[in-house]
Formats: sequence, C-alpha cells, structure tokens
Amino acid sequence: MGAMQHKIRSLESVRDLVDEALENLVLERLSSTGEGPAMMLARDVLLAGGKRYRPILTLLAFEATGGTDLGKIVDLAVAAELIHTATLVHDDINDQSRTRRGRPAVHATHGISHGVIAGDYLFVLAFERCGGYEARIVERVAAACIQVASGELLQLKHIGDLGTKPEDYYGIIDGKTAGTFATVCSCAAIYTGSSEDYIKPMESYGKELGRAFQLVDDLLDLTGDPSMGKPRGTDAQEGKMTLPIIHALTMLHGVEREQLADVLTNFGDDRMQELIGLLEKAGSFDYSRQLISNHVERALWHLHKIPASNARDLMADIAKMSQTRTA
Amino acid sequence: MGAMQHKIRSLESVRDLVDEALENLVLERLSSTGEGPAMMLARDVLLAGGKRYRPILTLLAFEATGGTDLGKIVDLAVAAELIHTATLVHDDINDQSRTRRGRPAVHATHGISHGVIAGDYLFVLAFERCGGYEARIVERVAAACIQVASGELLQLKHIGDLGTKPEDYYGIIDGKTAGTFATVCSCAAIYTGSSEDYIKPMESYGKELGRAFQLVDDLLDLTGDPSMGKPRGTDAQEGKMTLPIIHALTMLHGVEREQLADVLTNFGDDRMQELIGLLEKAGSFDYSRQLISNHVERALWHLHKIPASNARDLMADIAKMSQTRTA
Repeated sequence: MGAMQHKIRSLESVRDLVDEALENLVLERLSSTGEGPAMMLARDVLLAGGKRYRPILTLLAFEATGGTDLGKIVDLAVAAELIHTATLVHDDINDQSRTRRGRPAVHATHGISHGVIAGDYLFVLAFERCGGYEARIVERVAAACIQVASGELLQLKHIGDLGTKPEDYYGIIDGKTAGTFATVCSCAAIYTGSSEDYIKPMESYGKELGRAFQLVDDLLDLTGDPSMGKPRGTDAQEGKMTLPIIHALTMLHGVEREQLADVLTNFGDDRMQELIGLLEKAGSFDYSRQLISNHVERALWHLHKIPASNARDLMADIAKMSQTRTA
Repeated sequence: MGAMQHKIRSLESVRDLVDEALENLVLERLSSTGEGPAMMLARDVLLAGGKRYRPILTLLAFEATGGTDLGKIVDLAVAAELIHTATLVHDDINDQSRTRRGRPAVHATHGISHGVIAGDYLFVLAFERCGGYEARIVERVAAACIQVASGELLQLKHIGDLGTKPEDYYGIIDGKTAGTFATVCSCAAIYTGSSEDYIKPMESYGKELGRAFQLVDDLLDLTGDPSMGKPRGTDAQEGKMTLPIIHALTMLHGVEREQLADVLTNFGDDRMQELIGLLEKAGSFDYSRQLISNHVERALWHLHKIPASNARDLMADIAKMSQTRTA
C-alpha cells in the first residue's frame, strides 16, 4: 500500500478508501493460481457491501488521534473487516442462515465445508495483514477475536433461555460487537503513538458505539421495515434473547408473561404481531431506545476528550446516525 | 515465557517442552472468566496427544540453525500446533468424522456450531502467539495457512474424481501438510538470523519430510493395523484420492480397472480386502513406499547443508522414523 496522505473529507470518502482496499486485495488474490479458488469463494460476501463500520472507525480514529499517512493504517482497517466477514460466514453456518448481505450465504450455495474453509481463509487474510503491526496491537486484535468466540458461546448457551438476564445480554454483545469496535478505535490510537489519555477514550467511544449499534440491530430485527433488506423476527426464530425480550420477560406478569413465554417457545411468522404487541405493552421498545440513546451520549462524551478535528466530527456523526438507522 | 536456555537432548525432552507449553496455555486460559468456556471446548483435542511434529520441528530447526534461548521460539512452536489443531477441528466437521486423537470430535459431542467456534478460537490463539515475531515470519505463517485452505478446497474438488492425477495429489498434500512443515522449519531459521543458505535447506527439509509424512499417513489408512488406533479405509470411504489409489487407477486395465472403479464408487468396509488386493496387484504400495523413501532421502540431503549438531541429528532421526511408523 503506497503513501496515501490525503485527509478524510467525508464518510463517503473514507468508505471509498475501504472499498478500494478490499477490491484490490480481492483482485490480487483472485489471480493467484493456488489461492484463486479460496478467494473466489470469499469474494462475494466480502464485496457484497456491509456497513464497513470497523474499517471506517479504524481510519477515523487514526486521523482523530493525529495519524497522517492513512496508507499505514489501511492494513489494520482491512483486517478488521476481514475478521468481521469471517465471523459472519461462520455465524451463518451456526445459525443456519441462508442469506447474508442480500446474497446467498457461502454455506448455502457451496455447502458447510466450503463455508468453514472460506471463513478460515478470511481469518488468515486478516492475520497476514496484521504482521506489520507491533505486538501490542496484534495482541489486542487477537483478544477481541477471543471475545467474539466467547460471546458466541455465551449466546449459544442462552438460546431459548427465558431466564437470560440483561447482564448476560451485555456479555454477549460486548463480546460479539462492542469489543471489536473498541479494539479498532484503541489500536488506531496506539498506532499513532497516543498516550492513554487518547487511547482510553477511543476505546470507550468504540465500546459505547458498538453497544448502541447492536441494540439498534436487535431492535430492527423486531421493528424494522423488511423492505429495507432485513428479514424480521429472525432472532426470536433462532431463540436469541435480545434486550427487548429480556426486558418484557421481567416486566410482564401473570397471563401476559405466560403468553410471551409461549410465543417465544413456539415462535413462527404468524406470531410476530402478538410478540410486538406484548413488547409494546411492556414498554420494551421505549426501554431499548432509551438505552441506545444513553450509549450514544456516552460515546459522544468520551469522544470529546480528544481534540476537535474533522475526523472527530465524523466519528460523532456515526454515533448520532447509528441511533436513527433503519437498516 | 521465561528464559529457557537448556539444550535439547532428545526427542522426548523436546516433546515435553511442547506439551508443557500447551498445558500452561490451557491452564492459564481455563481460569479466565470470559475465555474459560472457549478453552473448555478446545482443551480436550489440544491435550489429547497428537504427534506434535510441527512444534517439535520448530524447536529443533531453531537450535539446528544456531538458536540458543528456546523460550523465544516456544510461542511460534505453540502457534504451529494451535493452527494444526484448529484445522483438525474444522476438518472433522467437513469430513463428518466422529473421532479425533482417540476422542470424540468437538462437533460430535457439542454440535457443529461449537466445533466451528472452537476451531476459530484455536486459530486466534495461534495468531495472538505470533504477535511478537517480525512481519516476515507472520507473513510466512499466514501464507502456509492460506495453502492449507487452498489444499482443502483442491481436495474437496477431487473427492470421488477417478481422473485425479499425481500432481493434483501433490498439490493437495503440499498445501495441507508439506507447506506447514516447510514453514515452521524455515521460520525458525529466519528467527535465528540465518542466511538463505540455511533458510532454504530448512524449508526443503520440511517440505520433503511433510510429503513423506502425508504419504505414510495415506498408506497407513490402507495398510495400517487398526489396533494401533487409526481406523482403516476412511479415505476411500470419503472418496479421497490418495496416491496408491491414483497409481492403481493408472496401472490397471480392462476388467481390473473397472472393478477398482466400482470398489471406489461403492466403497464400504466389506470391500476393503478387494481394494487392497487390487492395489497390491497394481504395485501401488511398493510405488508409494518408493516415493516415501525418496522424500526421506531428499529431506536428509537438504539437512546436511546445515552444520552438524545434536538438533540436526534429531531432525534426521525424525525423517528416518517417519518411514517406519505404524500409527
């Protein structure tokens, strides 16, 4: 990756940088005789879009903490997206999901073995990209990946568990999502040579933003507009205990609590409206929205511990927008 | 890992070093609240034995090329075994194998999702361990992992393909096995600061040994004594085209060729003796044994390009023993 000293002007421009780096990687590896087939398998899911939060945050946090040559941090940004995509490919096997990013999941088209190998390959590409960074950064990235695996195990443990507590939920989302957001932001700050005065706020910003992001995701699974591309009710279908559901299970009593337990235990598309009605009655959507707002506020508060800059403004924009996204 | 300056005296002592390092890692992570469950899942397969070729070769190649403080290379040795174990856990899902290292496979006991996550976790532990090494080493390790994924895809592509050629077979085993052997030996030499005069022979030794090792493995799948712990005929059962089979398909003609094709296409335990008979008639076992002997000879020839030492002698012992192992 050559020198790339242009400053980030907009979220579109940083996204373009990320997409370009990913496309270059795909093209380079597709033309390799040995590696071509592995990249053929991984290409679609890698280039199918996705929000690119992790790499975008990596680049922004780098510039916001004084980094200048974006070319030096691009490998880390790409690694973050590769790791994320690897976990999606493997998650889809585990959840038996048929689609991802609007396309058929790798395992759905090519079978489980190819899905497993494609995910492994994406992990290794990420690993390769991290070779140039100091041990302290690699260790943090690895720790974040371990948190993802641990969060997934915790999630599996609580599938269909109506006794799941809010702290279990936070354990799951901190592992699966917030930890990786926190890690990319803090690693970018470490790489610019920042002191803990900047590393810590970057980490906390990422963590709070990641929590807000996952809470919104889980809310959209219940309240989202399916025409925006996301099917509804998949979490309930898979027995995943998200925060609105955990909240309603605590708030409702008597007949309504029993009805909710029955809906969750015997869930199907035909019971979606019933579930929504119960969650509304329990105030669970308002509760979730309040928590999302709290996490965004905290993210912004941490962000203001670093000096004002265009990159910092864009990080604030991401936090604010995360609250109102509809897909 | 503290200083560990004792010289390697025997293969037993180097194996003990490896096992101790793995056990320490397992114990350390088991006691972590977040990570404990992931390590619980991975522990059995990690400590269930295995030949530990890759970490043992890492330590020996390090000492044979002038390395003194073994403590500095232990992380790389452990990483090699972690990567190998990760691929075994995922392979067992892909091959639907029920046992591994004499125990039930992770996915067989805990389900596919837990198997996928356990393998990912082992990969990440390896990645974490590599953080302290220079980019050149990390890139080689990553390249070896990519070769493993590519070799697996090539193998899947040739499942049940009676037209598989010897060069396809070598493409598969170089990717899946020989590449990782070559990589650990060459990376150890790079780490000692050796010139290409030593790095190259170490790489070639590893590659030839890895080929011999895999050829023996595939031969034992046909001729081995099941009481030594390995079931027989699993490759034929899974439609894997190993070298003796590829050879026999080329050598036999007419009725015998048709019989072999039928045995392979409709394989079952009851046809094992028929398969063995055909392979003997085609001279395929002798052919495989000759190739194994050639690879071992070449491994020894490359080994003699580095100076004599106890570690070098042990590496030669491994090559010679690989030829006569029975399990």
